[in-house]
Amino acid sequence: MTPLPEPFRIRPAMRGDVPILLDLIRGLAEFENLTHQVTATPERLAAALFGDRPAAEAILAEAEGHVVGFALFYTNFSTFLARPGLYLEDLFVKPEFRGRGYGKALLRHLAGIATSRGCGRFEWSVLDWNEAAIRFYRSQGAEVLPDWRICRVTGESLQNLGRNAT
Amino acid sequence: MTPLPEPFRIRPAMRGDVPILLDLIRGLAEFENLTHQVTATPERLAAALFGDRPAAEAILAEAEGHVVGFALFYTNFSTFLARPGLYLEDLFVKPEFRGRGYGKALLRHLAGIATSRGCGRFEWSVLDWNEAAIRFYRSQGAEVLPDWRICRVTGESLQNLGRNAT
Repeated sequence: MTPLPEPFRIRPAMRGDVPILLDLIRGLAEFENLTHQVTATPERLAAALFGDRPAAEAILAEAEGHVVGFALFYTNFSTFLARPGLYLEDLFVKPEFRGRGYGKALLRHLAGIATSRGCGRFEWSVLDWNEAAIRFYRSQGAEVLPDWRICRVTGESLQNLGRNAT
Repeated sequence: MTPLPEPFRIRPAMRGDVPILLDLIRGLAEFENLTHQVTATPERLAAALFGDRPAAEAILAEAEGHVVGFALFYTNFSTFLARPGLYLEDLFVKPEFRGRGYGKALLRHLAGIATSRGCGRFEWSVLDWNEAAIRFYRSQGAEVLPDWRICRVTGESLQNLGRNAT
């Protein structure tokens, strides 16, 4: 891989970056053919990232005079370790800036945040048919857990499940 | 299913419950044949659950004069929704108290917390060979996502990945 073009930097997203972040989120959704699932608004995103009790954090990668990608993450928790973990919810590099090492740089940056915060693990999810991504993640030291599946309840099912709870 | 034996209640865990919680966590690890992975200490668990910036929350189920089970959870975040989600990290009912609806009551209680907090989704993980659990979760309205896999970096691999990060 060729060296990262200069100047390149990764920085925390700030409140003024909300429009840029929304563009990136929509770009990611488009890439995943999931645009119909995006209901994020500037107000909600700003509250979640920059409100009194932030639910997540975001970082931006800047290069060649542009924002070229972003990552959004939060801390989670391992019961067995009784330590926090870092969970990467989304990582996206704009299609026109791919293949230059920006995704790898974002991933390494997040691993650096995880270790500096004493996190016992760094996790994310990948689609099982995305063989190129899986190969890349393995080359970076990640294990792809074969036997865990994600269970999800949303919308009306969630309302129903929570109704008349003890 | 027979009605829950009275008196039954679910309550938030408190600092004084740390020894009970550790017992339950070890019980869960034993059930999963993962006892060797448990390195939690009372101090770390207390700090994570009851410190200045709690990383997770726990609830206890009490019945028949005993603590019969627990659940540990935290909020995460959906980028597309720009809303928090509830993530259930662990749910455990002591073997001698199973089959009486306590697990279901814990799950419903958590769904109630999720809706009351405006969470857009409620998620957890299940082992793909645990057919009884999968059947049960589906009966409660959960979708088991077939194609997502969890990637994880820990220990020395995490240190290496984070070294010399941008």
